[in-house]
Amino acid sequence: MKIAQISPLYESVPPKLYGGTERVVSYLTEELVRQGHDVTLFASGDSKTNAKLVSLTEDALRLKDVQDPLAHHIAQMQEVIEHAHEFDVMHFHTDYLHFPFSSLLNKPHLTTLHGRLDIPDLVYVYHKFKKQPLVSISDSQRKGMPVDVNWIGTVYHGLPLDLYRKGEGDGDYVAFIGRISPEKRPDRAIQIAKEAGIKIKIAAKIDTADEDYYQRMIKQLMEQPHVEFIGEIGEDRKGEFLGKAKALLFPIDWPEPFGMVMIEAMACGTPVIAYNHGSVPEVIDKGESGFIVDNVAESVRALENIDLIDRNKVRETFEKRFSTGVMARNYMELYQSLIPSTKKLVFISKELKNQVRSLS
Amino acid sequence: MKIAQISPLYESVPPKLYGGTERVVSYLTEELVRQGHDVTLFASGDSKTNAKLVSLTEDALRLKDVQDPLAHHIAQMQEVIEHAHEFDVMHFHTDYLHFPFSSLLNKPHLTTLHGRLDIPDLVYVYHKFKKQPLVSISDSQRKGMPVDVNWIGTVYHGLPLDLYRKGEGDGDYVAFIGRISPEKRPDRAIQIAKEAGIKIKIAAKIDTADEDYYQRMIKQLMEQPHVEFIGEIGEDRKGEFLGKAKALLFPIDWPEPFGMVMIEAMACGTPVIAYNHGSVPEVIDKGESGFIVDNVAESVRALENIDLIDRNKVRETFEKRFSTGVMARNYMELYQSLIPSTKKLVFISKELKNQVRSLS
Repeated sequence: MKIAQISPLYESVPPKLYGGTERVVSYLTEELVRQGHDVTLFASGDSKTNAKLVSLTEDALRLKDVQDPLAHHIAQMQEVIEHAHEFDVMHFHTDYLHFPFSSLLNKPHLTTLHGRLDIPDLVYVYHKFKKQPLVSISDSQRKGMPVDVNWIGTVYHGLPLDLYRKGEGDGDYVAFIGRISPEKRPDRAIQIAKEAGIKIKIAAKIDTADEDYYQRMIKQLMEQPHVEFIGEIGEDRKGEFLGKAKALLFPIDWPEPFGMVMIEAMACGTPVIAYNHGSVPEVIDKGESGFIVDNVAESVRALENIDLIDRNKVRETFEKRFSTGVMARNYMELYQSLIPSTKKLVFISKELKNQVRSLS
Repeated sequence: MKIAQISPLYESVPPKLYGGTERVVSYLTEELVRQGHDVTLFASGDSKTNAKLVSLTEDALRLKDVQDPLAHHIAQMQEVIEHAHEFDVMHFHTDYLHFPFSSLLNKPHLTTLHGRLDIPDLVYVYHKFKKQPLVSISDSQRKGMPVDVNWIGTVYHGLPLDLYRKGEGDGDYVAFIGRISPEKRPDRAIQIAKEAGIKIKIAAKIDTADEDYYQRMIKQLMEQPHVEFIGEIGEDRKGEFLGKAKALLFPIDWPEPFGMVMIEAMACGTPVIAYNHGSVPEVIDKGESGFIVDNVAESVRALENIDLIDRNKVRETFEKRFSTGVMARNYMELYQSLIPSTKKLVFISKELKNQVRSLS
């Protein structure tokens, strides 16, 4: 299938540092290429991909001194329009920016919404475009959408199977990964570890926006002897950090639409103790890949019972539900559902032809 | 003619307070309606107009706590698309936001660029859309455009003839109007008045962004006996303030694309002493509506000769060049030039019919 993936330009694909959307776009793109599809990736010029890369903007915008990021995205959209005739399906990851023209192109298209939806201004745009085919990254994410829209499916994020290996949980600590921010509740994680009598290692970045919160609320908590702050870590160190942890603490206080770190832990065989918000009940299989809790006492009890969870089973659940293969398969189903059936027959016959060829 | 005017949503049309673009959109829209055209104005719901008003967003965005102004503008664009078939021509005032779809609509359209163009990011978008019909608000504005684009004309801003009346310049002061900012150079204006031995009255707002500049550079200058700071003034007080002034000082230090206050002064019969930047040599007719200067000494000399300028002539020049009537006529010429000639014949025949009817 000829597929366009349209990424934001804030980070390269994949991102050099942090960048949720662009990371998922990269995993999906590479997996679709691996499966033999003809994929074109619209992304910043410093992206690395096995797909065809189409870029106007040389470098990702976030790390540069860019005054007007919208100008780059609007130019990118014109590039997309000019290439539109080449594709069977166009997959947008650019919020609502393309909505005014994506219907005018008369091409199968869909949009994955990667962010939070409970922002009042979004009412105007999503109500106006209620026929646009949208994909949520969890069912829970949809609760934030204030108007009726055309959801065509939920596709969970996935990770490459070989990104992390199962660890043995043989460290003497629990792990916390994320921004030091009020929604992520590092304070809760520190308290849970304290009451459970176990060390906690915190891998986190402190954004400028959260500096005040850190100074006021977190810094002194981190000075306790059971807390170790190891700063921000990349993917190279994350596997070992998570794999050795007894559990990942995920005591969030907001409706996180997906929560990538949960499946990262699962990929390392590490069970997750997560508060019941956002996508948590969809991502965590209770007793199989972790525990879902509502308060500190429950979290402590979960930690006491953490050895009841089989780390092989956690990794298995990850492989079964959250690999890039599964994610790509789910998206392919949606792509197929959007393509007029006359076209679909052509694909089938091509596949049949290949099968016949491989047999002969 | 059936005309769409598409305004930004930051301010109402006309704006309640400051708002350059929306103010011009209002003047143009009302004048086109007055001339008998069928005008539809896309603007915030708190706008006041004799045109048909189409709004999704109830209140202008700038005075509200809006997290995502782009969402409102993208929704507005879809409204524009849905109405596009109703118009003979579509006039956008929304920078480059509509470019990806405005060509897809197959309708005559043009875009007035109201802002500064020398921003590196704009290279990407204007290069990509180099065929979009663009209008500059001064020839000088085009110098900022870093790439070749499709300029179809320059149309200067205009003011309603009855907005201000000619004053007699019988105050004992020179006037300065504008933000207290480094580009507007209130310090220079104060120095010029001092060296010329005349009082200066400063009508200005101090934006949060300029507070530091004000405290550091301007506040102590304002404490001099020849300076009077009267704060921000609305249109109701502006006429008298400008009309009584001997001259307007406009000692700018940046390529201002138009400079509305110059024609406001001219409407009051008040000559302008302006530094040679941006649109100044296009707006000021030397010796007729003011003097163009390069330094403080020249400004002082211009002030000494200010009585050589006939205030009736200044007002006349304003009426001849900068009324809303002139502005609307200039835009109408551009609209006509974009409409295929077959269509134009229909307009002419209608006009002829009306003429015949009025004669019979």
